[in-house]
Amino acid sequence: MKTAILGYGTVGSGVGEIIDSLRDINIEVAHILERTENLHKHPLMCDDINVILNDDEVEVVVETMGGIEPAHSFIMQALQAKKHVVSANKAVIARYMEEFHACAKENGVRFLYEASCGGGIPWLHNLYNALRIDEIDEIHGIFNGTTNYILDHMEKEQAQFDVILHKAQELGYAESDPSADIDGYDIQNKLRISASIAFESNVPLTFPVFGIRNICKSDIDYAKSLQKKIKLLAVAKRSQDRYYAAVEPTMYAETQTEASVAENFNLTCLHGETIGDLKFYGQGAGKLPTANAVVQDIIDIYAGIDTQPVAKQKELRVDASLVSGTYILRSNADEALIKELFADAYTKKDVFDNCNYYHITPISSYLMHQKAAELMKTDGNLFFVHVAEVEA
Amino acid sequence: MKTAILGYGTVGSGVGEIIDSLRDINIEVAHILERTENLHKHPLMCDDINVILNDDEVEVVVETMGGIEPAHSFIMQALQAKKHVVSANKAVIARYMEEFHACAKENGVRFLYEASCGGGIPWLHNLYNALRIDEIDEIHGIFNGTTNYILDHMEKEQAQFDVILHKAQELGYAESDPSADIDGYDIQNKLRISASIAFESNVPLTFPVFGIRNICKSDIDYAKSLQKKIKLLAVAKRSQDRYYAAVEPTMYAETQTEASVAENFNLTCLHGETIGDLKFYGQGAGKLPTANAVVQDIIDIYAGIDTQPVAKQKELRVDASLVSGTYILRSNADEALIKELFADAYTKKDVFDNCNYYHITPISSYLMHQKAAELMKTDGNLFFVHVAEVEA
Repeated sequence: MKTAILGYGTVGSGVGEIIDSLRDINIEVAHILERTENLHKHPLMCDDINVILNDDEVEVVVETMGGIEPAHSFIMQALQAKKHVVSANKAVIARYMEEFHACAKENGVRFLYEASCGGGIPWLHNLYNALRIDEIDEIHGIFNGTTNYILDHMEKEQAQFDVILHKAQELGYAESDPSADIDGYDIQNKLRISASIAFESNVPLTFPVFGIRNICKSDIDYAKSLQKKIKLLAVAKRSQDRYYAAVEPTMYAETQTEASVAENFNLTCLHGETIGDLKFYGQGAGKLPTANAVVQDIIDIYAGIDTQPVAKQKELRVDASLVSGTYILRSNADEALIKELFADAYTKKDVFDNCNYYHITPISSYLMHQKAAELMKTDGNLFFVHVAEVEA
Repeated sequence: MKTAILGYGTVGSGVGEIIDSLRDINIEVAHILERTENLHKHPLMCDDINVILNDDEVEVVVETMGGIEPAHSFIMQALQAKKHVVSANKAVIARYMEEFHACAKENGVRFLYEASCGGGIPWLHNLYNALRIDEIDEIHGIFNGTTNYILDHMEKEQAQFDVILHKAQELGYAESDPSADIDGYDIQNKLRISASIAFESNVPLTFPVFGIRNICKSDIDYAKSLQKKIKLLAVAKRSQDRYYAAVEPTMYAETQTEASVAENFNLTCLHGETIGDLKFYGQGAGKLPTANAVVQDIIDIYAGIDTQPVAKQKELRVDASLVSGTYILRSNADEALIKELFADAYTKKDVFDNCNYYHITPISSYLMHQKAAELMKTDGNLFFVHVAEVEA
């Protein structure tokens, strides 16, 4: 079976390497789409998408370009040319997944994107399989290795955010513009995709996101004083025809599995009716793990294996009460203002390392994000964290 | 598609319940094989395997009887009658898996057993998928919920082994004869099955096993003083054409993912060339999680999905050096005897809670098990534990 790879960067070249190493499976790369200035680097490279679209022998187009355009147009054109598409590009999928699926269905081909969420973790695959039997009422997890590395190393090296961010950039774990990672938008894309699958619905990109741009060493140390660790979490819950989703820093007891995820690893979790809790740990990024996930999709197409559920598009409505509990806010805003803002949910203030930590409970994730955004006008450096319940 | 369930105990009845609840999938139970005295309990029950073998409409036979006979004969007869077989019975599979696979192949049917290792965790399924791309050089994990519950609760409740074992028996987590669990033979079966798949070889049931029958509260507390937790681990490693496997108590740093596995949960881990580390966490036993895994196999047969690798039967030889490192031995035997026994590998003695803890390094798992067995003649209560390396 012939494939074409669009974009031969880190992941794309990893896909090429893995395809070349496959034993007993007859898959090959026929074309690589790259910029004109790179064409000398590989004999299969071309700079014209039409070469690929017009090659009837190409059955699968692999999109590893990243970005919105021309990725979006190329995916649509490939599907319209009746080629299966495998993509690792969470940004374009989060924006257009319904359009891509409709187009794939119309043209009798498949659109797969295991690598877009959780990198090398076979997350979507296991989510599809779980859905063959169960309804899923919760997914959550650590879906971004860059921020997990930063949080882990702020603790391990007892260092401030900027120092570790810089180190992550030097190691190639973080982009020179780190905002997609540290502000949580990369995770938002992955949660939008994962929750849409898990809940058989269209979960739009409108849920609240609070990243770790404002975190400081005191926050890590305060968590440690409570025997907890802070992780940047994605969470989505469903109850019947209602759902809620959020990306927010979350404190786990040091003994909980989520807290044990170190370095740039990811952990993705689901809860189903009969299966209970399933958690999947692995490399959420990196050349070969991500390329492995892309090639798994290609092999599924090659082998005619289809476990992707038929999109049912259940109508769900947002219920802000589904994610709620205790939040801890660090702010140097006036205490009276904070008391007024949170009213009955204000419970206590801890002073730690010259910082004020306010415990707010009970409050919904929705209200917490809203009130924190309001308070940001007064205190642009505030930070808040959800306190995860300790499992039985 | 019609199925028949052999044995309607906890798992078998769970399979029946889940099959009845399936949406959009046309699978049904046609017969249930049970003991004569139970036949009044369900209208589909019969006590004659021939009713099932002779019913041409039955395509899948589900074996959830447990035990060696008649499970072994019934599985063989069902395969010979050209019916697919799905089994949750690790004891019979560990003993006869090559025979079952050969018979299934000869008759053009499938033999699947996801539920036999890791209960509800989609472990074998993900192992098969990983093998489509990678060679696997290590698997390890917590494959027994009963012993994990005992270890976890000895720490949580600060209690001795017997007290928690009794509690586990009352909760139904442990059998009235607990030896298969606490002596590690249940894990040995699962490791033999998992390693044979992972290494595409026949890993026989001859590797060393040391369980937790001898563990005492002091061992748990000593581990805690080192910021570690003891887990009963299965491990198998491969390097080219050599492999080693063992079941042994293993100490993990409290911050490691393995240490975070609480209650009766399982964790199964693999390491592949391109995918790196993947870890899977979930319910290793229990009615619905285990039945879920059985039904996943049935749905794969129904949907014609086959990712099970073709048994290659690579010839591997045992290499005792592959699993080695530091071990800690608790023994009240004479110190001079212990020094002599371990010679150069003897490094130090800690006295903790009136117990002698000897640190032995480096030593292979093979030699450690062998020498401990020798020392057991003098000290029947000794306990030893492998010290896991801390990941980077």
